[in-house]
Amino acid sequence: MSHQRKKLLIDTDPGIDDAMAILAAFNSSEVEVVGLTTVFGNVYTQTATQNAFKILQLAEATQVPVAEGSHVTLKGAPKTWVADFVHGADGFGNMNFESVEGFRWRGTAAEFIVQKVRENPGEVSILALGPLTNIALAMQLDSSIAESAAEIVVLGGAFFVNGNVNPAAEANMYGDPDAADFVFGQSGNIKVVGLDVTHSCQFTGSELSNLRGRGRFGTFLSGITAFYLKYHQDAYDMDSVYVHDPSALAAVLQPSLFTWRSGQVRVLTESVATGMTVMDVGLKRWNNPHGWTDRPKVQVAVAVNAAETTSMLLERMAA
Amino acid sequence: MSHQRKKLLIDTDPGIDDAMAILAAFNSSEVEVVGLTTVFGNVYTQTATQNAFKILQLAEATQVPVAEGSHVTLKGAPKTWVADFVHGADGFGNMNFESVEGFRWRGTAAEFIVQKVRENPGEVSILALGPLTNIALAMQLDSSIAESAAEIVVLGGAFFVNGNVNPAAEANMYGDPDAADFVFGQSGNIKVVGLDVTHSCQFTGSELSNLRGRGRFGTFLSGITAFYLKYHQDAYDMDSVYVHDPSALAAVLQPSLFTWRSGQVRVLTESVATGMTVMDVGLKRWNNPHGWTDRPKVQVAVAVNAAETTSMLLERMAA
Repeated sequence: MSHQRKKLLIDTDPGIDDAMAILAAFNSSEVEVVGLTTVFGNVYTQTATQNAFKILQLAEATQVPVAEGSHVTLKGAPKTWVADFVHGADGFGNMNFESVEGFRWRGTAAEFIVQKVRENPGEVSILALGPLTNIALAMQLDSSIAESAAEIVVLGGAFFVNGNVNPAAEANMYGDPDAADFVFGQSGNIKVVGLDVTHSCQFTGSELSNLRGRGRFGTFLSGITAFYLKYHQDAYDMDSVYVHDPSALAAVLQPSLFTWRSGQVRVLTESVATGMTVMDVGLKRWNNPHGWTDRPKVQVAVAVNAAETTSMLLERMAA
Repeated sequence: MSHQRKKLLIDTDPGIDDAMAILAAFNSSEVEVVGLTTVFGNVYTQTATQNAFKILQLAEATQVPVAEGSHVTLKGAPKTWVADFVHGADGFGNMNFESVEGFRWRGTAAEFIVQKVRENPGEVSILALGPLTNIALAMQLDSSIAESAAEIVVLGGAFFVNGNVNPAAEANMYGDPDAADFVFGQSGNIKVVGLDVTHSCQFTGSELSNLRGRGRFGTFLSGITAFYLKYHQDAYDMDSVYVHDPSALAAVLQPSLFTWRSGQVRVLTESVATGMTVMDVGLKRWNNPHGWTDRPKVQVAVAVNAAETTSMLLERMAA
């Protein structure tokens, strides 16, 4: 296994930082991208699929299939809200690229995930960059995929820091809290990369503009990230962007860049804090059973070597 | 004001660490204890009142009135659960002292709080060591008391750390989440001392046993804390106890021992995380209104000078 590339299946809602992560993956010899599945979140699912095709065209990887995922949450609620103020209405900073078609897999994202994992037991890393709807649906189709995937790396959650939709909730968890709470209850074969670490990883405005003209993707990434930078300037008074999705890719490429803490995780599915992630860090021997009892322990990233992570990612984006 | 002692009204559910805090207050020249009000939590309310009388007898302060507080939560739920495994069924480590009577105020705790604050506008510090039922009821009787109290210092909550009832909730917040969420919505004149700092303050087993024979209260405190130490040994594998209630007293006596962060606080009143405290730390300019919007900013203790706090408190307890 050590000389083999990891097979990487990316569930995604591109999304500016999804594009950064996926294009960086195509410049990473550690992984072979075996498919993209799409979901709502940063954009609606249809747009996510269009943008997945655009990314694969840029990467000259149009042989990679795209399986369109759910348009509604696990409980069937239609999406009424996407993060267009972060990513633009088109998901790519309102650059309004011409749409392209590609290799559209016949079947749902959940079916694609199940098939890929079954075909390659123990070999497929699933990188989930959006709400966990497709991952939950796949686990409902075949509960064994949680354990027979090589790993499931989830971008999402805010454990010991504020969320980004509101003080409690991070956007991917907020997008489908029922799916997320279900997924974290299924298996310990899950790594969670949340705002606790992604807020430590930043690209500056000049790092992003300097991508222009560099490598296969630099000009594209520099173009779409201008809108993303503007959002961060307005929302956080900072001249840089948080590195969310690419940090989760980094956790696939080099997990030792992160400090992992093991514990049970719940995602709140009701209350003013719907979408909040709460982890039992294991400090205490509890007197009474509670909502975390008997759940599998997942790995939560609690610290990161931000300098090495961001410089590796910038290198991959510029190559 | 600077040469005057603060008038201190303590709402309490004694409780071993309540006894530590109240007796330490009687050895603190910065404050004059003007009354105790009782509530359920560590024990049932009737026991809390009995134990308040016992504490006042020890302090030779039987002129201080005790106003018995609510036996039910703000929503009227009878208490079915107290922390007898932490404090003993009698609240004093199962030492089973003889019960004493004292100066029982005619009226409810809420009425007492309103009267004391009205009589001394701007001069009464309220130290709330239990669930916030009485404080909420007092604010419902007279909403102006939140602002006309000198300050309201609340022991409770777990903001960026796990709770102690379950991974989400600290015991006082869990005891009456509706009351707590109501109180934090009423006024910014509130300081919150939660597990984020009280877990940093510890008394070792030998510090507690060394209290025996020291001062007016040392033998009593050494006696009742043996049970409390045993609980900490069992639940946390530590040979020391967390200093909860006395740390909140320290925040009245010397607020500069703590680092305070200002923000809106919600207490979850439903979900698997009922009783969890969630604070907006103010990192982000939010795009959409949410459950924290337009709430007053309270002060939350996020760090503490633990060495100075614990040594000051031990000194007061041994005097």
